[in-house]
Amino acid sequence: MDQDDRSTGAGDNGLGLFTDLYELTMARAYQALGMAGEAVFSLFVRKLPASRNFLLACGIERAVDILERLRFDAGDRAYLGTQPGFDQAFLDSLSSLRFTGDVHAVAEGTPVFANEPILEVVAPIAEAQLVETVLMNVVGLETVMASKAARIVAAAAGRPVIDFGSRRAQGIDAALYGARAFYLAGVASTSNVLAGRRFGIPVAGTMAHSFVQACDDEMQSFRGFAGVHPETVLLVDTYDTLHGVDRVVALARELGNRFRVQGVRLDSGDLGALATATRQRLDAAGLERVGIVASGGLDEHAIARLLADGAPIDAFGVGTDMSVSADAPALDIAYKLTAYGGEGRMKLSTGKRTLPGRKQVFRRFRDGTADGDTIARHDEALPGTPLLQPVMAGGRRTAPPRPLAAVRWHAAEQVTALPDPVRALSASAYPVVVSDALAADERAVHARIASANRAAGPPDA
Amino acid sequence: MDQDDRSTGAGDNGLGLFTDLYELTMARAYQALGMAGEAVFSLFVRKLPASRNFLLACGIERAVDILERLRFDAGDRAYLGTQPGFDQAFLDSLSSLRFTGDVHAVAEGTPVFANEPILEVVAPIAEAQLVETVLMNVVGLETVMASKAARIVAAAAGRPVIDFGSRRAQGIDAALYGARAFYLAGVASTSNVLAGRRFGIPVAGTMAHSFVQACDDEMQSFRGFAGVHPETVLLVDTYDTLHGVDRVVALARELGNRFRVQGVRLDSGDLGALATATRQRLDAAGLERVGIVASGGLDEHAIARLLADGAPIDAFGVGTDMSVSADAPALDIAYKLTAYGGEGRMKLSTGKRTLPGRKQVFRRFRDGTADGDTIARHDEALPGTPLLQPVMAGGRRTAPPRPLAAVRWHAAEQVTALPDPVRALSASAYPVVVSDALAADERAVHARIASANRAAGPPDA
Repeated sequence: MDQDDRSTGAGDNGLGLFTDLYELTMARAYQALGMAGEAVFSLFVRKLPASRNFLLACGIERAVDILERLRFDAGDRAYLGTQPGFDQAFLDSLSSLRFTGDVHAVAEGTPVFANEPILEVVAPIAEAQLVETVLMNVVGLETVMASKAARIVAAAAGRPVIDFGSRRAQGIDAALYGARAFYLAGVASTSNVLAGRRFGIPVAGTMAHSFVQACDDEMQSFRGFAGVHPETVLLVDTYDTLHGVDRVVALARELGNRFRVQGVRLDSGDLGALATATRQRLDAAGLERVGIVASGGLDEHAIARLLADGAPIDAFGVGTDMSVSADAPALDIAYKLTAYGGEGRMKLSTGKRTLPGRKQVFRRFRDGTADGDTIARHDEALPGTPLLQPVMAGGRRTAPPRPLAAVRWHAAEQVTALPDPVRALSASAYPVVVSDALAADERAVHARIASANRAAGPPDA
Repeated sequence: MDQDDRSTGAGDNGLGLFTDLYELTMARAYQALGMAGEAVFSLFVRKLPASRNFLLACGIERAVDILERLRFDAGDRAYLGTQPGFDQAFLDSLSSLRFTGDVHAVAEGTPVFANEPILEVVAPIAEAQLVETVLMNVVGLETVMASKAARIVAAAAGRPVIDFGSRRAQGIDAALYGARAFYLAGVASTSNVLAGRRFGIPVAGTMAHSFVQACDDEMQSFRGFAGVHPETVLLVDTYDTLHGVDRVVALARELGNRFRVQGVRLDSGDLGALATATRQRLDAAGLERVGIVASGGLDEHAIARLLADGAPIDAFGVGTDMSVSADAPALDIAYKLTAYGGEGRMKLSTGKRTLPGRKQVFRRFRDGTADGDTIARHDEALPGTPLLQPVMAGGRRTAPPRPLAAVRWHAAEQVTALPDPVRALSASAYPVVVSDALAADERAVHARIASANRAAGPPDA
């Protein structure tokens, strides 16, 4: 497995056809109408979910990987030939179509806010258009997941969080790239072995209720499992949680020096009360070094409450709620044309703001804390760190993928640099403004488009 | 592309490692402890989300496909060798591991309710255990999606619903198998071209705002697009919706007999009021045959309100809300050991009911309407249609995949047979009972397990 595989998961060949049909009908129309000019598309989130103070931008490595591999194979073209609206010249042109554009993006693991470009594509309009669906999907997926996980990691306040979500994730892809995004956001490990293999993420997991149930009784199941896996975590709530803990204590007496069990897991009931009672029983038996893992229906709020109440829990296994980002399963993510043929473009009618042209985001820091962002024209030089950097030029990546550990470090550093209220679970706004020059561009483009459309009629418009 | 590809999407090779690590640590322990007996695992949903009156079981074809292809390749085994707890004998045994079990399942597109088995696996315990994660994931994904889509299709009351959700779906897999599930649930078409190719689903889509924006003005964009794609749907809300409609009317005058535009699409604003005004302008111009497609932030409730208010909308494009099943993005899905070595098994402590052994569900119909279900022992013969049927025997599928059109037909028929209140959007319960024989088994297994665990100690338990 090479470094590429670890970072991106690979396996995304043949995704040319993973696009909305209208991207292809538009590409055909651009070709027929001789519209081959350069377009700028901006990928951003219009509005943050009520329960997110920031987003953690992820999925960019995979996006770049997919753009590099963009192809329409013979089967794809044959299939399109069965659909109306595609002539042979167009289908032939797809066989040599590659993504040849430039991409600027924020580094993976960078916190972003509403209207800030996560990624901008500059390419011939048909190419830039065709990749809309896949870019939104893959950047959206990992950004949704990392942004959720960042809250859970924050709530756990330094205790390890383990991703148990694969079984409830929305598909294979969501489980694998979710595991990657969770890890980037600070989750310690994943139960998903394929994610471990593909991305080099630590894997974790010990036993389920079914093992206990398959044995004649719980005591036998603990004895048997610890015999095979001495340094395990025993699941104690299959029948009666505190009796389960008593049996762990009994096993420790049985095994003496050979007892190397690392912890017990509580997966149901009142986790706070059970953790306290479990800790007492373990400590009373001299098993202070046996830890307590809690799981079962946890989200960031449940974890924060447990810890505020002083529950002696050493690690959290989090599944469903994180795996689908239950409180915000989708983002108001957009990929909008902001320039074509050198001129700024925008919609007018809907009140949805699209900032024209290529842009840059400057983040100012004061004493190491992020102090506010300015969304600017790409060619402005304003105070602060420019977040958007080239990641592809002429269709090729500008640098090899960063090791996942480096991306994870960057994310931790950048999240830590956010103001405390923005990192907290309760709602808090972070200041983002638009530069004077970009605001002036916005007004000028608005006026130009409104005027062109008035002039164009129809007569009664 | 053969029939298998169309039904299942294929491409799921090498998923042996798509499992939670604990499935493998348990498999190793089963092997070390000589536990090779036959297990029964039952896959079901414990509790329906508040906003679902029924679930539409889907994902079973893909599950069967994955079970047939279950493999651990050399790379998988080498990776596991780097993890603690797996000896060489165990790793070697994985190289020849295949799924050899029997599977019974409800037909895809069958409505199911809480605690009813969707699928049951009978296999040597290690095999049955290893496939837990992937089965829950793939059956869960499509069942989540189909169950959501069934509500949207019901709200649309016969008007076509188009899946626009790929860009916001949680990953490539969710978009593709989501499109399949939506189609099974009655959605008319998808915008996702790869889903169209893989599964043979009708694809739909015409133009986006970016095309209008890239042209010098809206009138030019309509003229150009309709020139290339005469039978298109024109998107009219880029700048000002009703001016956009006026330009469609102007284009009709320009083109005369050559005007073949099928419809207009409204994607923002007050869709009901705009649809009414649009219809009036089109009709006044003699364009009665030009339809109105509405999209933008729609869910089943918004669609129902629009139609209740008499909005003259002919088709609905639905994206985000359907693509992630926003109001219920995950199910309380479970895969539980219900028998091992011929004896019923269950958990005791958590109050979560697990019905022991292999089961059957009998659905009674009265005058063609489903009247109530009984969850029974698998060997009972009760009134009604038995829903669980063999789909795999000895690790091989018992029948080729059914054509998607047949599955879709079955789903429509079975949903139509539900009582009206259960098919409605507001909450309504459907009667499900447990047979006397199964209830007796449940009591007996409970007593046996409680007794065995009391007897097993530890002394103070």
